[in-house]
Amino acid sequence: MDLVVTFLGTAASVPSAARGTSATLITRRGTRWLVDCGEGTQRQFLRSGLGLVELDAVLVTHLHGDHVLGLPGLIKTYTLRDRARPLLLAGPPGLVALLTEMRMVVGRLPAWLEIEEIGAGTVLRDEGAGVVAFHTDHGLPSLGYAVVEDPRPGQFDVAAARALGVPEGPLFGTLQRGGEVTLDGGRVVRPDEVLGPPRPGRRVVVSGDTRPCESTAAAAKGASLLVHEATFATEDRSRAVETRHSTAREAAEVARAAGVRLLALTHLSARVQPREARREAEEVFPHVVVPRDFDEVDIPFPERGGPELIPAGSARRGAGAGGGEPPASGRPATFSTTDL
Amino acid sequence: MDLVVTFLGTAASVPSAARGTSATLITRRGTRWLVDCGEGTQRQFLRSGLGLVELDAVLVTHLHGDHVLGLPGLIKTYTLRDRARPLLLAGPPGLVALLTEMRMVVGRLPAWLEIEEIGAGTVLRDEGAGVVAFHTDHGLPSLGYAVVEDPRPGQFDVAAARALGVPEGPLFGTLQRGGEVTLDGGRVVRPDEVLGPPRPGRRVVVSGDTRPCESTAAAAKGASLLVHEATFATEDRSRAVETRHSTAREAAEVARAAGVRLLALTHLSARVQPREARREAEEVFPHVVVPRDFDEVDIPFPERGGPELIPAGSARRGAGAGGGEPPASGRPATFSTTDL
Repeated sequence: MDLVVTFLGTAASVPSAARGTSATLITRRGTRWLVDCGEGTQRQFLRSGLGLVELDAVLVTHLHGDHVLGLPGLIKTYTLRDRARPLLLAGPPGLVALLTEMRMVVGRLPAWLEIEEIGAGTVLRDEGAGVVAFHTDHGLPSLGYAVVEDPRPGQFDVAAARALGVPEGPLFGTLQRGGEVTLDGGRVVRPDEVLGPPRPGRRVVVSGDTRPCESTAAAAKGASLLVHEATFATEDRSRAVETRHSTAREAAEVARAAGVRLLALTHLSARVQPREARREAEEVFPHVVVPRDFDEVDIPFPERGGPELIPAGSARRGAGAGGGEPPASGRPATFSTTDL
Repeated sequence: MDLVVTFLGTAASVPSAARGTSATLITRRGTRWLVDCGEGTQRQFLRSGLGLVELDAVLVTHLHGDHVLGLPGLIKTYTLRDRARPLLLAGPPGLVALLTEMRMVVGRLPAWLEIEEIGAGTVLRDEGAGVVAFHTDHGLPSLGYAVVEDPRPGQFDVAAARALGVPEGPLFGTLQRGGEVTLDGGRVVRPDEVLGPPRPGRRVVVSGDTRPCESTAAAAKGASLLVHEATFATEDRSRAVETRHSTAREAAEVARAAGVRLLALTHLSARVQPREARREAEEVFPHVVVPRDFDEVDIPFPERGGPELIPAGSARRGAGAGGGEPPASGRPATFSTTDL
């Protein structure tokens, strides 16, 4: 479980007793990016069992209250805890003004907080992956975010290496990492002689609030997981158009166009039942989950299985927060049906 | 249960998994006043089982984030629900600027919202009661609030009325309500001839964040319930002095000086255990409870019993929100010990 998405707030606009406002945590190899920070997010961390972890970045999709009202409290709490580690806070233009407006309750913005107003493009690089922002369609400056892993070297063909006379040992490792090796007889073995085609990295995309749009589908092309908003059901489609949101069916159409492995619907309004959202989406695209707050989706490398919903309370969850579980391997590609 | 205090957030500064930041609801005969509105308060209403009720006033004790960060979300949610009923938002100077600063996420302040910057004195009048603000000592403009019921007419002495020749019926009611009546023979009966001495109304006081101070003790003189902050235990007293907070022991000293019926400790920092806070306070004052989030204190008229802690989840709770329970009468004066 070295790439996990944790749903910390799955309600649209207003919270319910069961669902907080928007907050989605992406944890990759101990690095933590939070997409949006609705009111109460710091407490959702505490209630989730993760604790209030030291985030590496907060990525804001747009400046509506239900996506940002948790920021002042989060910043204040980190300050009270004497945070020193840098935190990148990135989002559309207006973010600096918003934080400045909140100075009365936030106080002076702390030195460890780096605020960046961004457009489409790479927001940050991490080892073997980048986070890329893309424009969406919500009637005000709005962004979605894609975590895009670099391609990995192809599978190492042990038989081919032996046949070429490469002795087992360190030279195997050099070839696996993409380096050439020279054998004792002078023969040079290139990595492409012993490696399969490069294997794609994983990709996780969070749409934020948006009408279904090309840019989301493009960002989500071949993604392991697309987290897409589904504020309404089709019966409220005119309202979705008017408020620049998506229906569950429209989210599924984006997932189908992008050919993702799994679609997770979030940002559900009180008017749409999770069961109904899922049923509607499944008419268009077969692999759909509707996470509840504190559910996780684990995203293994494709050869190890498909992304899988891990319900809150399951014994297997929490590893995304650096919990003690060993990486899951060899798990079959299954799509959980326990989310409803 | 026509006067109930519901604890919706009992943590100091930062929330915990179990305790939200400051919010205390006072419900009197269907009128609802919320003292402070920390981040996540709208959701605490939903989680409490009360639902997000239509408050009549929000009374802010001071402008620290953990007491006001729930305001933008609350206002926004009421707006989305097409609220029309007026809501008074009262608090120390700076409140208007704070709300104006938050306009980017709150939007234009709604017409039903009436913001008043206040000092000490009567904030509002309700039938048979007033809400009075008093200055406290927290190192910035800060207020506590007292709900003060008017005195009630004395007990009606049926035997005395009969002896004076008053016929049973409507004239009894006139005398009970404090009116004179003229008997058939011309004799005028004054109410003081058939009524005992006026009986005091109930009084509920919420301290807000403060050092122990005279003004709180004066406001709480003879109160049924004093809700006092207890951010620290005595071992952290120097920190309490420095940050203008109180220890549990100091809160109990205020309760003792004021001669209240019951002291409820709130605003506990993570450094103080509820059991420890209670033990420390009880060394000074015997009647102490440490409510958890969603606990209630029911405050009957004194002749019907003492104020009583009703734990969250108890079958008897929720009446403060207009639930269906009949008024409790004849209950003995007990102080619950179930809060820890």
